[in-house]
Amino acid sequence: MTRFPHAPDAAALERGPVLAPSFDAEGLVAAILQHASTGEVLMLAWMNEEALARTLETGEAWFFSRSRQALWRKGETSGQVQKVLEVRVDCDQDALLLKVEPQGDGGVCHVGFPRCFYRVVEAGALVEKP
Amino acid sequence: MTRFPHAPDAAALERGPVLAPSFDAEGLVAAILQHASTGEVLMLAWMNEEALARTLETGEAWFFSRSRQALWRKGETSGQVQKVLEVRVDCDQDALLLKVEPQGDGGVCHVGFPRCFYRVVEAGALVEKP
Repeated sequence: MTRFPHAPDAAALERGPVLAPSFDAEGLVAAILQHASTGEVLMLAWMNEEALARTLETGEAWFFSRSRQALWRKGETSGQVQKVLEVRVDCDQDALLLKVEPQGDGGVCHVGFPRCFYRVVEAGALVEKP
Repeated sequence: MTRFPHAPDAAALERGPVLAPSFDAEGLVAAILQHASTGEVLMLAWMNEEALARTLETGEAWFFSRSRQALWRKGETSGQVQKVLEVRVDCDQDALLLKVEPQGDGGVCHVGFPRCFYRVVEAGALVEKP
């Protein structure tokens, strides 16, 4: 079942009013989660058609796990449900930007930090700076 | 030539001090560009080992173009060079977050908007809100 159309040309893709995601060879687009209040970039995950459709329908973030090859409701086990306030798409419609309000403990990351980007590259090495 | 090592286990990947990106089957990791001053998410692009190494060495963003299958110095033709102030990596090291100062006209997007995420999904349709 195809839920989203393909854009017929670059003009439709870049300036048209039709959501026509450019899913990759694995059927995925990248989705960036940004905290709606703080503006912090929280995590990057992947969506297939079903995950995107459910996200738009429910107002909560659904993803597709590449490692588990399974649809995944974020927060299902962790409680870190992501309430979606806004969904943006980029120029070539292969990336999404979601403004979210993290529920549960207010975080997104399974390691325990509030966001997944808790390490900075400094002189080639990683330093934890949550 | 392999420039970056592989993490031997989950602990090294998630908490270790060694930058060991999890390049995908195409040899790429996702790189999110965030404006260092405004906090706006500007674009998402892809880096292979060479692009990441050059970015860290030069302090300017290099990418790998999936469509052109070529290394790409952002701004080479557009003037939209991206000065990199900080590079972060996520928990499983398959996504990077770059804090940047866009040079040139201050934008990143070939369509002409300051950022690539200039459209919002509203009731299933796309609305331009730069």
